[in-house]
Amino acid sequence: MIRRSFLGAVRLGQHRVLPGVPQVLPRLSPTSAFGSSADSLVSRFCPEKTDLKDYALPNASWCPDMLNLYQEFLEKTKTDGWVKLPSFKSNRDHIQGLKLPFGLAVASDKSDWRIFTRCIQEEGQGYEYVIFFHPSKKKSICLFQPGPYLEGPPGFAHGGSLAALMDETFSKTAYLAGEGLFTVSLNIRFKNLIPVGSVAILNVDVEKIEDQKLYMSCIAQSRDQQTVYAKSSGKEVLSLNPLPPSPSRQTERRTLMMLAQAGTSFLEWDWHL
Amino acid sequence: MIRRSFLGAVRLGQHRVLPGVPQVLPRLSPTSAFGSSADSLVSRFCPEKTDLKDYALPNASWCPDMLNLYQEFLEKTKTDGWVKLPSFKSNRDHIQGLKLPFGLAVASDKSDWRIFTRCIQEEGQGYEYVIFFHPSKKKSICLFQPGPYLEGPPGFAHGGSLAALMDETFSKTAYLAGEGLFTVSLNIRFKNLIPVGSVAILNVDVEKIEDQKLYMSCIAQSRDQQTVYAKSSGKEVLSLNPLPPSPSRQTERRTLMMLAQAGTSFLEWDWHL
Repeated sequence: MIRRSFLGAVRLGQHRVLPGVPQVLPRLSPTSAFGSSADSLVSRFCPEKTDLKDYALPNASWCPDMLNLYQEFLEKTKTDGWVKLPSFKSNRDHIQGLKLPFGLAVASDKSDWRIFTRCIQEEGQGYEYVIFFHPSKKKSICLFQPGPYLEGPPGFAHGGSLAALMDETFSKTAYLAGEGLFTVSLNIRFKNLIPVGSVAILNVDVEKIEDQKLYMSCIAQSRDQQTVYAKSSGKEVLSLNPLPPSPSRQTERRTLMMLAQAGTSFLEWDWHL
Repeated sequence: MIRRSFLGAVRLGQHRVLPGVPQVLPRLSPTSAFGSSADSLVSRFCPEKTDLKDYALPNASWCPDMLNLYQEFLEKTKTDGWVKLPSFKSNRDHIQGLKLPFGLAVASDKSDWRIFTRCIQEEGQGYEYVIFFHPSKKKSICLFQPGPYLEGPPGFAHGGSLAALMDETFSKTAYLAGEGLFTVSLNIRFKNLIPVGSVAILNVDVEKIEDQKLYMSCIAQSRDQQTVYAKSSGKEVLSLNPLPPSPSRQTERRTLMMLAQAGTSFLEWDWHL
């Protein structure tokens, strides 16, 4: 269980300052955010050896389109600089063993915690997806095959299931592209429904960095690009890169990088709690 | 299974016209949309007797705050005009037995279809929520208790899980308040994280009807209103009310009203396919 003291540490708000608590939002250097550290981030994000199950691998439920696209991008990981991102059951898998900052403690806990986009473990019933990231292009491709537990109108994916996956893909991309931490805004325009069992391709780009925020865009469409399912934009806050490199700060920073994989939503972080 | 011919029928796009297919978006009368028909809609939406399981009822996983708030609003259903909405496992439960339009057919199907916000059936693990609607005030309250399968950062709900529930609550509210059908846009600003196991209250209002669209707003906050989790706005398209009252149109309209419960997202409907 998370200790309640963490709640104080994660109070957020663009213009809100807790009484007696100084607000410090560290300065961002766009150069460093978009610099060579991306490779290091990607390496840490994609461990070569792990006992953790990777849910972003093909299984028997994947349709031919999904398998073909997966193979296509897997080839590009060998020749064109793309990286296939692993996807574990919970963000707790990423932070285990770390000394946590701010009084945050993840105790040994027998509860079955799951990241929302891996909440359904039966193959093919819920979210089937895999994200490929291109470090130098600062973009991602997410292949998404919704199952029958993600239904909205009969036979089609619920708009909210697409919204959640856009949020998750924005978050992963922002973290790897520029150490963006949390989604602060998400704006979606829905165009067409995604049939359950078909494949939607989410193309995510980092548009710019400004005022310590990453501005993201996404277009979700069919494989043949003839049907646009939705377009969206998102803003991710940048707040880790310029931390002083003291040992304690390094621990904090590493931990928060792992937390960033959560895909959830912060506006500011109260560094001094 | 949905017949593929339905895919043609639901091609949508604000400025896109399929070759050879006339686009007709029926005119809306705001008076009728906000008139006395709301009571009739609510009656149809809330059957007095059904064998279907209602997932919007208290269970052993609900925390005291959730139970207390539920009881509070249940009292208001007796005295203050509020209505508790039922929540079935799938939208297919709502449309069974109907003759469907546009070549859409929901065949007898043994698959386990679930609406996304009821995708996890283990009590307390996923979405626990209940929506109360006020017909004359045209507003809704959604009580939301996220479980550990909705996690983002350790101990907190994924932003996408809140986004999806906002979409779902917008959709239900828009349908009952003005026969709004589908979400066309969803804009969210995230402020704070929701601890897993706690209660967030979503206050949803219909702000206005204009150009055949319902404009919605939502604020999600803690019970004591001291913490705002997120604010959002949404736009729902209105397209059913002014259909001509021919028998076939009535069947279509009734079916589409049921489809509206899906909470998914249409921009326009190709009526003439």
